[in-house]
Amino acid sequence: MTYCVGLLLREGLVCLADSRTNAGVDYISTFRKLTVWSKPGKRMIALMTAGNLSISQSVITLLNEGVPDEDGSLKRMDEVTSMTAAARLVGRAIREVERIDGPGLKEHGSEFNVTMILGGQLAGRNLRMFMFYAPGNYIEASPETPFFQIGESKYGKPILDRVVTFDTSLNQGAKCALISMDSTIRSNISVGLPLDLLIYPRDAEKPAVQRLITADDPYYSMIRDGWSGGLRSVFRTLPDPTWPD
Amino acid sequence: MTYCVGLLLREGLVCLADSRTNAGVDYISTFRKLTVWSKPGKRMIALMTAGNLSISQSVITLLNEGVPDEDGSLKRMDEVTSMTAAARLVGRAIREVERIDGPGLKEHGSEFNVTMILGGQLAGRNLRMFMFYAPGNYIEASPETPFFQIGESKYGKPILDRVVTFDTSLNQGAKCALISMDSTIRSNISVGLPLDLLIYPRDAEKPAVQRLITADDPYYSMIRDGWSGGLRSVFRTLPDPTWPD
Repeated sequence: MTYCVGLLLREGLVCLADSRTNAGVDYISTFRKLTVWSKPGKRMIALMTAGNLSISQSVITLLNEGVPDEDGSLKRMDEVTSMTAAARLVGRAIREVERIDGPGLKEHGSEFNVTMILGGQLAGRNLRMFMFYAPGNYIEASPETPFFQIGESKYGKPILDRVVTFDTSLNQGAKCALISMDSTIRSNISVGLPLDLLIYPRDAEKPAVQRLITADDPYYSMIRDGWSGGLRSVFRTLPDPTWPD
Repeated sequence: MTYCVGLLLREGLVCLADSRTNAGVDYISTFRKLTVWSKPGKRMIALMTAGNLSISQSVITLLNEGVPDEDGSLKRMDEVTSMTAAARLVGRAIREVERIDGPGLKEHGSEFNVTMILGGQLAGRNLRMFMFYAPGNYIEASPETPFFQIGESKYGKPILDRVVTFDTSLNQGAKCALISMDSTIRSNISVGLPLDLLIYPRDAEKPAVQRLITADDPYYSMIRDGWSGGLRSVFRTLPDPTWPD
């Protein structure tokens, strides 16, 4: 399983991805699920993936080496000129992998299962974030819907629902994403460390933070213990029920 | 959708069920999902149900009117002599409904989808709690696994994971169940009020609290606002990240 969350905020973009992959509980490995195409001053494009790992990796390979266009020419992610073009490219890459691998997967009883979050900005253009479904179609985040989640999304949703708005700061957004991730890791053993975190300030044209967070990261440890202790303390301070009966 | 949670604690049993039923977002109604067979001094048996409502209702009707035994005689829930017998009866009732309705559901492309939590005690016997799956098989709660959830269970699981142990008091258990329910209601529109709450102290032979909680219940309102405010305050007091870069 996987959990990734992307926040599109007034101040910029936050991406957080876990790195656990499993095919059954007896085969658990670590794979990075955040891929970044960044050229300072030119572009910062980040893609997070969930679902079947072979599909995700094939899509990323295509984005690096070139996705066949309608006219047969190959288009790469590092040469797109707008986020709209980047989103169309991801959609085409997903459909191309389905064309190649879909029938074989189906024959073996596996569905074509992949979801992705794409966020980024090209110099002088808008910062945008999209979420992709298995057919390659996608939706876009907006100030009213400032976050997307893929993979094991439910455990970590309540805190996002309560805290995140478009006006949440980048730092607070990153903090909230880490708490959301921690809730997920505690409740589902198949989501795990290390974490890939990216913080991109709008119009900065390069990430402010791009960091692999391991179990001994002091900030993440503090968040984990502080949140857990804080929740228990709020729980204790709320009065017990005293219904008359 | 539905969300029900049952806690088996040293002090007793807590059951909490929502009451929203929907067949698509344009057909939402209220149905009770907690059924209680209680005879003070004799027995207290509670059953919560999730999944296809027609299946749940058929199972409960059979438990009230009699489930055919292997020898053809009918056994009712209000005449069982042990919780083991009660659990077997629920399993048989689920299989009997599948025998009658399963083929028709399958023909219409619906799977036979039902889960249940059964908890209770007969005078002089042990307090026990079970969770049932669609095939009628079941597992039992233990001091190491003191809660079961059915229906839309993920949004409300992190708080249970963090707070509930076998030694949690009945009142704290009820408080935690209400917080877990509130998190679920906030994140999934198809889970909704009113709530059915039952608190049963071990060996009491009757419920201490059996209550329908509506939107204007003062304690639930306080929990809802207090929890939300408390979470936000813990979030604010945790320091923002300051990674060097």
